[in-house]
Amino acid sequence: MTEVDRAAILDLLGVLAYGELSAFDRMAGDARMAPTMAQRAALSEMAAVEMSHYAKLAARISSMDADPFQAMAPFVESFETFHARTEPRTWGEALVKAYVGDGLAADFYREVAEFVDESTRELVTEALADAGSSAFAVREVGILIASDPTAASRLSLWGRRLVGEAISQTQRVAAERDALTRLIVGGTGGLAEIAQLIDRITTRHTERMTAIGLSN
Amino acid sequence: MTEVDRAAILDLLGVLAYGELSAFDRMAGDARMAPTMAQRAALSEMAAVEMSHYAKLAARISSMDADPFQAMAPFVESFETFHARTEPRTWGEALVKAYVGDGLAADFYREVAEFVDESTRELVTEALADAGSSAFAVREVGILIASDPTAASRLSLWGRRLVGEAISQTQRVAAERDALTRLIVGGTGGLAEIAQLIDRITTRHTERMTAIGLSN
Repeated sequence: MTEVDRAAILDLLGVLAYGELSAFDRMAGDARMAPTMAQRAALSEMAAVEMSHYAKLAARISSMDADPFQAMAPFVESFETFHARTEPRTWGEALVKAYVGDGLAADFYREVAEFVDESTRELVTEALADAGSSAFAVREVGILIASDPTAASRLSLWGRRLVGEAISQTQRVAAERDALTRLIVGGTGGLAEIAQLIDRITTRHTERMTAIGLSN
Repeated sequence: MTEVDRAAILDLLGVLAYGELSAFDRMAGDARMAPTMAQRAALSEMAAVEMSHYAKLAARISSMDADPFQAMAPFVESFETFHARTEPRTWGEALVKAYVGDGLAADFYREVAEFVDESTRELVTEALADAGSSAFAVREVGILIASDPTAASRLSLWGRRLVGEAISQTQRVAAERDALTRLIVGGTGGLAEIAQLIDRITTRHTERMTAIGLSN
């Protein structure tokens, strides 16, 4: 592995690990908004799953003789900015955020999976496999929309805001982390390739919103 | 199993399950007070462990054809009152609370283990086995005390407050849940036996405080 490869893989593991750690933190907090104990427990269990992914990613960073917290540090501000700008105010917003967030993370994992070595690929695929928020969120949002006709338009707007903030933070990270950007978009990592990546992610986001009964 | 036994076991599983769920919620929130990302991740990982215990306890309740949320409901107010009265204001207080809380839970598990059927015993022993907060808390509190000579007396006072609130909530639950109380203290479940139980738990608490470098 060249030094550039190593730096890019550490960046990749770092961004994934901090994404999981901050998702844990936010989902655990959002669980308090749940209308019932069963719903609170369901979102708390999802948060705990993020933490088990985090532990695996951090262990992998350590096994590369690197410090997990140093690897995560460059990405803290982007994630915290994203979360601060997308603080859910209702249970419906919390659900859509968990669903959209896990979906965007899954897309990102999928984008990078083909460019990394096999053992890293296995790790990110595993992290992707059992996120499990989707089924719960789809069902719960379905119930919300059915019982409140105005919920669909409000939550659709919320979904657009989530993806907008996610894209703006992705652009920021892409501009700051050269090796990582090249790893993900391949080739020169130029603006055109980043635009294509964002285009693919936006398309999949639209499909997900449709699946949950919301418009983009 | 008689109906009384069944009610007592469901109460026991319910109180343990809600204890884990509320510990998750509070530890996940307290993790935000951590001075470094490494410490935050450590407390977050402990919170996630509580959630895995919760999942096992809830599954056991379901396997008894009972509703986990109904089984937990009678204990929500006691735990929430405990947590509301023991909201940590510093990282040191959060650590001592995690340590004392897991210790008190372990004592409680130990007290009940001999009175329940073998499969329930295995489950509570497993829940007890890997809480793992102690080593981290002992080390971290040791560092705090070494660097700040006033911390020991403040945290000792905090420890006394924690156990005091825990005892007052235990008495409340004992007064309200007859079958559970009889299961735990055996025999008639009279006041003398409850006093002895509290005495044993207080003694173990004192030993734990000494182990962490604090006085009772």
